[in-house]
Amino acid sequence: MNRVWQLLRPRSVAVVGASADPAKTAGRPIAYLRKHGFDGRIYPVNPKAAEIEGLRCYPDVRSLPEAPDVAIVLLGAQRTQQAIRELAGIGAGAAIVLASGYSETGEEGARRQRELRDAAGAMRILGPNTIGLVNLTDRITLSASGALAADQLVGGGIGLVSQSGGILGALLSRATARGIGFSKLISTSNEVDLDLADFIGALADDPATRVIALYVETIRHPAAFRAAARKAIRAGKPIVAFKIGRSDSGAQAAASHTGALAGADAMYDALFEEAGIIRAQAFSDLLDIPAALASGSRLAGRRIAVLTSTGGAGTLVADCLGLAGFELPAPDAPTGAALRALQTGEHAALDRNPIDVTLAGLQPDVLRGAVRAVLESDGYDALVAIAGSSAVAQPELLANALRDALVPGAKPVVAYISPHAPRAAELLSRQGIAAFQSPESVSAALAAMWRVHAPARPPAADSTAPSPAPVSCPEHGSLDEAQAKALFARFGVPGVREIAVRSPAEAVEAARQLGPRVVLKLLSGDILHKSEVGGVAVNLTPDEIGPRLRRMAADVQRHTGRVAEAFLVQEMVAGAAEVILGFHRDPLGTAILLGMGGVVAELIRDTTLLLLPEDGAALTAWQVEAALRRLKTWPLLDGYRGRDRADVPALVDAVLAFARMAQALGERLVEAEINPLFVRPFGQGVRAADAIAIIGAVAA
Amino acid sequence: MNRVWQLLRPRSVAVVGASADPAKTAGRPIAYLRKHGFDGRIYPVNPKAAEIEGLRCYPDVRSLPEAPDVAIVLLGAQRTQQAIRELAGIGAGAAIVLASGYSETGEEGARRQRELRDAAGAMRILGPNTIGLVNLTDRITLSASGALAADQLVGGGIGLVSQSGGILGALLSRATARGIGFSKLISTSNEVDLDLADFIGALADDPATRVIALYVETIRHPAAFRAAARKAIRAGKPIVAFKIGRSDSGAQAAASHTGALAGADAMYDALFEEAGIIRAQAFSDLLDIPAALASGSRLAGRRIAVLTSTGGAGTLVADCLGLAGFELPAPDAPTGAALRALQTGEHAALDRNPIDVTLAGLQPDVLRGAVRAVLESDGYDALVAIAGSSAVAQPELLANALRDALVPGAKPVVAYISPHAPRAAELLSRQGIAAFQSPESVSAALAAMWRVHAPARPPAADSTAPSPAPVSCPEHGSLDEAQAKALFARFGVPGVREIAVRSPAEAVEAARQLGPRVVLKLLSGDILHKSEVGGVAVNLTPDEIGPRLRRMAADVQRHTGRVAEAFLVQEMVAGAAEVILGFHRDPLGTAILLGMGGVVAELIRDTTLLLLPEDGAALTAWQVEAALRRLKTWPLLDGYRGRDRADVPALVDAVLAFARMAQALGERLVEAEINPLFVRPFGQGVRAADAIAIIGAVAA
Repeated sequence: MNRVWQLLRPRSVAVVGASADPAKTAGRPIAYLRKHGFDGRIYPVNPKAAEIEGLRCYPDVRSLPEAPDVAIVLLGAQRTQQAIRELAGIGAGAAIVLASGYSETGEEGARRQRELRDAAGAMRILGPNTIGLVNLTDRITLSASGALAADQLVGGGIGLVSQSGGILGALLSRATARGIGFSKLISTSNEVDLDLADFIGALADDPATRVIALYVETIRHPAAFRAAARKAIRAGKPIVAFKIGRSDSGAQAAASHTGALAGADAMYDALFEEAGIIRAQAFSDLLDIPAALASGSRLAGRRIAVLTSTGGAGTLVADCLGLAGFELPAPDAPTGAALRALQTGEHAALDRNPIDVTLAGLQPDVLRGAVRAVLESDGYDALVAIAGSSAVAQPELLANALRDALVPGAKPVVAYISPHAPRAAELLSRQGIAAFQSPESVSAALAAMWRVHAPARPPAADSTAPSPAPVSCPEHGSLDEAQAKALFARFGVPGVREIAVRSPAEAVEAARQLGPRVVLKLLSGDILHKSEVGGVAVNLTPDEIGPRLRRMAADVQRHTGRVAEAFLVQEMVAGAAEVILGFHRDPLGTAILLGMGGVVAELIRDTTLLLLPEDGAALTAWQVEAALRRLKTWPLLDGYRGRDRADVPALVDAVLAFARMAQALGERLVEAEINPLFVRPFGQGVRAADAIAIIGAVAA
Repeated sequence: MNRVWQLLRPRSVAVVGASADPAKTAGRPIAYLRKHGFDGRIYPVNPKAAEIEGLRCYPDVRSLPEAPDVAIVLLGAQRTQQAIRELAGIGAGAAIVLASGYSETGEEGARRQRELRDAAGAMRILGPNTIGLVNLTDRITLSASGALAADQLVGGGIGLVSQSGGILGALLSRATARGIGFSKLISTSNEVDLDLADFIGALADDPATRVIALYVETIRHPAAFRAAARKAIRAGKPIVAFKIGRSDSGAQAAASHTGALAGADAMYDALFEEAGIIRAQAFSDLLDIPAALASGSRLAGRRIAVLTSTGGAGTLVADCLGLAGFELPAPDAPTGAALRALQTGEHAALDRNPIDVTLAGLQPDVLRGAVRAVLESDGYDALVAIAGSSAVAQPELLANALRDALVPGAKPVVAYISPHAPRAAELLSRQGIAAFQSPESVSAALAAMWRVHAPARPPAADSTAPSPAPVSCPEHGSLDEAQAKALFARFGVPGVREIAVRSPAEAVEAARQLGPRVVLKLLSGDILHKSEVGGVAVNLTPDEIGPRLRRMAADVQRHTGRVAEAFLVQEMVAGAAEVILGFHRDPLGTAILLGMGGVVAELIRDTTLLLLPEDGAALTAWQVEAALRRLKTWPLLDGYRGRDRADVPALVDAVLAFARMAQALGERLVEAEINPLFVRPFGQGVRAADAIAIIGAVAA
């Protein structure tokens, strides 16, 4: 048993600083351990008491009769460090440190936190500033959370890892009231040692955990996180994450367009996407989606039956499902016949969807029959059963009907509870049927099921692909446009045809070669925003280009005070879509930024980030195309309104080449962007029309 | 007292088809009337009973001792018509018809519904297919809704009008459990007579109603609805509407771009926008937002203090508020000093926001002091107070602290309840403090408060403006581009300079006049999508235009089989923004469609609809500019990234002119669209570059 499991499932628990008063926070852990049925050994440690809750109390850590698997340390920050050192000294497996006053309070606290880690040695630490953990599978509560005061906790298939102890308590409290069950709940908080990844990895191995829920404030160790998430998902355990810090994204705007469009929160989207994690959009989704996924039912298609005895709620749920892209076909002939055979009365609506059995649905046999008819229908992939006002007086009605009709491995069934009927929801949840109060949760949960169970997608990264061969890159510094394009071309991203010139005569000659019409640009490694200083002119004939070059030189000098000495003459590329291709480095990893070019796409932030594999493996073409398809403006590449279809295979190759470059240059690549990259009609390839690159010097 | 109020506040109620068995639906209305304290006269009507609940029972309507203010008709559809005729005959004020089997079931039901209306004569009808109404202000329940089985209903300031009886019951049930109080609840359902507008109008006059909530499936009488909504909002009663049917919008796509982009659901957005109605985005918002607005507190700014004793929930709420655009400044110096004076202990975070008083906040005097410090602070416009896990064991803690600290007219205060603590939420709600379980509700409610109380905006329409003078429009049929632009120009939307030509020689001459470069287009009233048949060429010199015209004629003939005889030569307009200006006619009204031109804007549906005043009054410039500012791409007109600012005043004038045209032509205008309308830099006006118009013949 590794030390994480020793922590999650201890046989012996020391409670350092335990209080005999269960009303105090320090009195809670022992009270909760006993209340919820821990059958291992408990050692209170407190020099001022001889006995707590009938248990012998030890004056200090060194007097303990054995090295405990886990110690819950309830002391203040000042005394905690000494206790940790002593626990490590006697060989305790792990310590849970509840004290606050560490890195969350500033530099002094961060120093104290480093000292804590040093004091622990090989012993593992959960916290500090944690509320602890709860193992409901084995009825072990190692926590002071007030949510454990509930008389009966509900075991189940959801494993929760939260970076906030308060949120852990809130979710446990809310889930308990609804009958939603957890396997394990862990608050990692300051993560001086054990972090999200450690527990995701442990839950991946946990037979009791069917789905993992994460409350994320920050990811401190992205590589470990990604590896653990991959392990869990390969083990068939979907992950649902709610992440805060979304509204800080604006503050993290960087100087370049790429940075400005990416922002840190978008990197979490990229990371979750890459790892196959479902991002919960609303806080309530963090319970609702796992509750639905914990059933393990497989959603094989998008055709949903809504079965109701109350028209209003049926229509409301159907509307939300429609918004989420689900289909609500009317019953097919055999299903319709099976429904009509139930004798539901003249006002029932059995030939449409929602299927409204009206008040006849209050008869258990009619309801059961209707549920069976839908579950056995070839026309539906899932059932949403609606509990109307009768659920207040008869909370067991729907739960009983579903219990009788469900068979193992059946299609997914979820419930929507229209009135305030908590008992009805609880009975359903305890049967493993997710029961929602919000119609939007119904569609969010089914959408997550669809995502998890949709036809298999290729593995996220092809880790067997060879790492990019080292490529020499003698350039460094802020490259000019021609140098940047030459660099990108070496890695496999072709540029437009172009000729560098230094005089009107050279420009005329270049225009004749590249014409009939050309683009003229200032060529400079220092002036990044050429168009803002008058340094770009398009659609020029050889006759026009000489005078235009002189005017451009004058404009640039007026705007910048510098003499423009070099220019680029480029071919005009017509009939191509424009894409922006950049890269973004972030504490979470390095990502390729993809987006449609042009100012409108920029305004609506229609970009996506594609995280590079952290182990140097190559991106796959599948990943790149999936990222392109996420763009709102994807249809522009795909033949929208009679356009030529763009050369997407060539675009994918260019993105892969750009990614290889980013991986090969590693930390040396400071900034790189192609904007626009022209994507020509199918078969005609792509051309980089403008490029920026800043390269660091080769390490000594 | 008008007949709607006679229905809402009757002194005498006949219950036709009453049952003596309170377990039956027909037994409920009398049981509920008595349970909830109706003190008027109740007349059961049932030939088979002598007495019901101790009340004398009448065999038929004609035997009643007086014409009742209201009759609740509990009979099936077949017998209802006769009862309605008899009730009308004795002069009853209104009838509430619960039977189903009317227009919701198809054509036969619709016929039955027309007969019902005819039978009623001057008597008003609520329903059919309604669950009835509840007047909680006066404790009068005229309904069979199972939600009335609750022992204690909560009176309050929210007036609800729902087109679904089931949803009315669900909202009443949920609100009762949360302590949220209603003034009146009315289910209008099939609306054979009384509709949404009648009750919005009545609630506008109702002193007990402070905010109006609407559950909308369709608006049958848009003009009356708009007038009633305007009346309510002028009376200081905000309206919050949740409307379903959102996902049907795709099915209503029309042939023209305008129709395709508009869709019926977008018309509801336009109507709600014009009327000043807040559209609830999530179903739960339909209770949560009114609960916050019912306090009547005025949100004077966007600076929100989050006060918490639990860090996790504070951060979560702050994140949602940030996403919604609120500011969370740290306490200013005096507020910080007031907070520090509370002695909250060393780990409290009093110099930031969320303000975390930690567990010291469980002491009532500390909590009260912290609330006062925020309410008295000049640095905050509202307070979000968070109840942590202590709210389970001490549900009264926060409610008491707020009760003691709040003063009338104080800044808004709302609460977020982190654990499952329904009692804490109920106590707060009963004190008039909105208490939310979802962090997104907190921000939605404050955003609604901000919208309602933001600095006054001009009236929606200037009804004193003169109606447009009648304008002669001799054209009719499908106009060609030149005719359409001439028509639009007569109304005040200028076109680009252009010359119609019929030969290469004429085209060369025209290009010389309009050059140096011009656009050449096919001119045809029949071929709407010129570019798809090769009928558009841009950027031509006089030398190029002759051969190009011949090629265009050949292309058009190849694509369409028709001989192209006429062409337009147009000036090129450079440096202008492109806007689409169209109109959309819908059962809800006529609207002007505004959007950015170009394919990207089309893809992202960046358009907005501006409903024309229904009384022929003119749109105002303020309304048009507000609509433009709603576009995601508005910055393109507003100097984004160093662009010239576009001539927005000229654009506004063009929109007003286009709207006048739509009003003047009325039903004759079948289709009209300018795409693109070039908006040139400030001071240089707008130019219609392409136009479509289909005009009906003058009525005989």
